[in-house]
Amino acid sequence: MSIPEAAFTSAAIKAFKQNLDRTTKFFSALTPEQLETPIAPGKNRLIYLYGHLIAVNDAMFPLLGLGDLLHPELEAPFLKSPDGPAATPFAASLPAANTEINEKLLTAFEAFTPAQWLERHTAVSPEDFAKEPHRNRYAILLSRTSHLAYHLGQAVLTK
Amino acid sequence: MSIPEAAFTSAAIKAFKQNLDRTTKFFSALTPEQLETPIAPGKNRLIYLYGHLIAVNDAMFPLLGLGDLLHPELEAPFLKSPDGPAATPFAASLPAANTEINEKLLTAFEAFTPAQWLERHTAVSPEDFAKEPHRNRYAILLSRTSHLAYHLGQAVLTK
Repeated sequence: MSIPEAAFTSAAIKAFKQNLDRTTKFFSALTPEQLETPIAPGKNRLIYLYGHLIAVNDAMFPLLGLGDLLHPELEAPFLKSPDGPAATPFAASLPAANTEINEKLLTAFEAFTPAQWLERHTAVSPEDFAKEPHRNRYAILLSRTSHLAYHLGQAVLTK
Repeated sequence: MSIPEAAFTSAAIKAFKQNLDRTTKFFSALTPEQLETPIAPGKNRLIYLYGHLIAVNDAMFPLLGLGDLLHPELEAPFLKSPDGPAATPFAASLPAANTEINEKLLTAFEAFTPAQWLERHTAVSPEDFAKEPHRNRYAILLSRTSHLAYHLGQAVLTK
């Protein structure tokens, strides 16, 4: 019996979006002062987690072959560095960056066919992909969904 | 072009297993004393999170039509109640329950065909499922993966 492959891709997009929506709802309600709260004594501040999740989502554009980063200015403070003073000035601009990245990302996701989801991502070479076909776009989507949930679980502990 | 549906189901099982392995590795290394640590001041203890994740996994047997709970004794302290004294005596028996449940669950997962993953889970009626076919076993697998990641993110903050 033939089954609709799109059922699998729509389920994974839905799971990603659900975590994205919960994360956005949580962080966008915080004031710049609240964003200064560390998730635990001596651990990352909420602002770092927020910027980190946005930067990781932005990095999916080049990783999935969808184009360049929309906000390359987030890379240094939120991906290449641990939490520090460089993150602080972004409190005001993160919500807009988040909205822009999420909208464009979800639009691109909806446009991929199931076969395109199984194509390689750009961090794996064609040679390696021939041997390891599970290193595809779909695996990135699932892994980024877990990554969102992981940090959301931490962020809500400050409530 | 026809594509292999099994690529989607094996990717999701792999993502679930990855989170399961990380969770097992983290919790099974803890002493009964360490399991008493709350994940944040006034929040759940690690033992509660550990038992909760195991009980949620166990509940996938009836939910996915795979049979009865293997450890029904975990339901009251870890699913139906908040953290409390009833959880404490389980410190010694949780690792074995975890191993048993995970092994049987993963064996059952590997045996499902892609079409079976898209069948309804037992918490949705046949009538509702006819209208909402996305309420299938596959959606449960994705959601339980996020759930593991969410609480693992919290647990590691105690390190």
